[in-house]
Amino acid sequence: MISVEKALETVLNSSQKFGVEEIPFLKSVGRILKEEIRADRDFPPFNRVSMDGIVIDYNQFKNGQRSFKVAGIQAAGSEQISLKNIENCIEVMTGAVLPNNANTVIRYEDVTIENGFATINVDELNDGQNVHDKGKDGKVGDLLIAENTIISGAEIGVLATVGKSIVKVAKQPKVMIVSTGDELVGVEEVPLEHQIRRSNVFTLVSLLERLKISSETAHITDDKPVLKSKIESYLEQYDVLLFSGAVSKGKYDFLPEVFDELGVEKLFHKVAQRPGKPFWFGRKASFSMSEQDAFQNEKRQTIVFGFPGNPISTFVNCLAYFYPWYYKSLDLKVEEETAILADDVTFKPNLDYFLQVKLSYRFGHLIAAPITGNGSGDLASLVNADAFIQLPSDKVGFKKGEVFPIIRYR
Amino acid sequence: MISVEKALETVLNSSQKFGVEEIPFLKSVGRILKEEIRADRDFPPFNRVSMDGIVIDYNQFKNGQRSFKVAGIQAAGSEQISLKNIENCIEVMTGAVLPNNANTVIRYEDVTIENGFATINVDELNDGQNVHDKGKDGKVGDLLIAENTIISGAEIGVLATVGKSIVKVAKQPKVMIVSTGDELVGVEEVPLEHQIRRSNVFTLVSLLERLKISSETAHITDDKPVLKSKIESYLEQYDVLLFSGAVSKGKYDFLPEVFDELGVEKLFHKVAQRPGKPFWFGRKASFSMSEQDAFQNEKRQTIVFGFPGNPISTFVNCLAYFYPWYYKSLDLKVEEETAILADDVTFKPNLDYFLQVKLSYRFGHLIAAPITGNGSGDLASLVNADAFIQLPSDKVGFKKGEVFPIIRYR
Repeated sequence: MISVEKALETVLNSSQKFGVEEIPFLKSVGRILKEEIRADRDFPPFNRVSMDGIVIDYNQFKNGQRSFKVAGIQAAGSEQISLKNIENCIEVMTGAVLPNNANTVIRYEDVTIENGFATINVDELNDGQNVHDKGKDGKVGDLLIAENTIISGAEIGVLATVGKSIVKVAKQPKVMIVSTGDELVGVEEVPLEHQIRRSNVFTLVSLLERLKISSETAHITDDKPVLKSKIESYLEQYDVLLFSGAVSKGKYDFLPEVFDELGVEKLFHKVAQRPGKPFWFGRKASFSMSEQDAFQNEKRQTIVFGFPGNPISTFVNCLAYFYPWYYKSLDLKVEEETAILADDVTFKPNLDYFLQVKLSYRFGHLIAAPITGNGSGDLASLVNADAFIQLPSDKVGFKKGEVFPIIRYR
Repeated sequence: MISVEKALETVLNSSQKFGVEEIPFLKSVGRILKEEIRADRDFPPFNRVSMDGIVIDYNQFKNGQRSFKVAGIQAAGSEQISLKNIENCIEVMTGAVLPNNANTVIRYEDVTIENGFATINVDELNDGQNVHDKGKDGKVGDLLIAENTIISGAEIGVLATVGKSIVKVAKQPKVMIVSTGDELVGVEEVPLEHQIRRSNVFTLVSLLERLKISSETAHITDDKPVLKSKIESYLEQYDVLLFSGAVSKGKYDFLPEVFDELGVEKLFHKVAQRPGKPFWFGRKASFSMSEQDAFQNEKRQTIVFGFPGNPISTFVNCLAYFYPWYYKSLDLKVEEETAILADDVTFKPNLDYFLQVKLSYRFGHLIAAPITGNGSGDLASLVNADAFIQLPSDKVGFKKGEVFPIIRYR
């Protein structure tokens, strides 16, 4: 049995690259950017009018002129026009190019326009006011979005602005999620007395969907030859296999021996944590013989996460190991979150304790209230909580007000 | 001009229901549950073995018996068998039904099995140990997930367990996102000197995608008759129209008058905030004549959000007004988040200031560092931040360490 810290280190050391693909920018939310996005022009790309009103030559105002003949309109989206006579003005709209020979915009609120003349009703103007200078926000070539950024709505706006209709993002791993266990029936079925419905694979599908990974699922009966032949084929086809169940000491817990017989290298089995202790982790290096890379015969590996079958064990191990493995593989930096324990907790076993907590915000403090017992058990406690708080194995008593790392799942 | 508080109240008062639809449970992540989910059986549904090992009658152990003939195997997923002779034992697997006449499970680690006999190697057992009693986690009929819960991976597992392969969720509003402005060209186009690319509609599409709303987009030129005829048809077809631009004082800012002419009731125009001040908000009540409800002639309304065209204005107003309107409409309670200001901020105008901030966690404290100036301007500042912090209009100086509400966008 190894520590959580060592297990995580081992998992992270098995991270790998899946390459890059190009996709339409509007489909890229949640994906990880694999190129630098730089300004294709200055921002703003021209001296940009930033208020609706009139534009004049400031010197005329300074010299006492207050009434200006309206000599034209500069609309947003129109080619730049010129103020040919500096005793005149031009009406200008937000977003328009600043007309030639003019420099200072006075908003409509401060002007009266009558009979083709605009009269300025304020006594002070700033030279060049209400003009957003070309290049003020950024110069052509400036870095706007760094590689390895996770794409959100903010990045979508920038991608559109610089014309990146197609964007390079990290390819996602191909993932197969497998349940085992003869007690499991389908969600649509009515279980017999001794049966229950499959649920962990669907939980895993949802947790992977949060990372924008589309996964496939399969169920295999507790029959060793069947398990072996199916897993052999999955090892050929997928980058990652996630299992739920059949990794403990039961007579039908065939997975560890099947993995061994199929040449999957065991990196660890059992971690000093609760829940999720019988976690099996390994990898198989192989030569890909798929058509697209048959010529380069590229070396690849399949990573195997064998999660224990208890619903909370599967859930927490996916968050505590698969997620960091994925982030590391795709070069995404994720900041650790911490929260303040809302109640005293005692936990005697020499194990890291992943305790479900309900989060709340009080005056900028993130408070984690343990969700425990009261007979509601596994199912309800996951629904009633938002996160796990990780209490380290080297202590027994954890005090209200102490701070520990958390893993959110909402 | 009205206050942010009053504007938000007005927006929330225009919330509405969109009904309920039934969808496959695996598609329901991020949607809002519109039924109560109750346990269809006890949990566990039977006295469930929770360790791999053997099961005995505790009284035999208490009376000194240590060696038990292995009389059978109770696998997970098999019908319950019986311990016919209480001097024997049965091998049992995690997840199996507890055999009849037996009550206490000893894990394999504490047993030696040789020649068909299991010898117990420990001196103490608890009566009934390693059995998870029927109904301990919940009773048939117990409420597992409340109505109006947002569905995450945790809920997916529960839905699967209770056999809800089809689940009732809130229908989403039908949303059309419209950009206006003759200076705008498509993302794939190379803008002329005086043009820029459309970006706000795509930002809005992404922000709505976060809420699992699929929206449609359109661009209309700054031509009043065209605007009027298109908007008239959108008012018939959609629950919500989001506009970006053309709500200020410009000569081609036709939207307010078009809305007026089309009978859209203005609820407010201009909010005391920066950015996002020229925000126009209204609604049009109408009778739906669509086929599916032609018979009931149901009263419906279309809500119109006219966001200012500046990218950050559109962005922050979508988060500050559309999001809460959506949550209220679908009866989702969302907790307000607060963060601690990392630097002093001075802001003189008598406006609520939505300031972009970068969030970080320090010892359970959520710290908000303002992202300002340095010439990086609008685009970069949205990318470099995670949230807006809302600084109220009634103060000028905001001190490091003070706590204010935040709106996250990652």
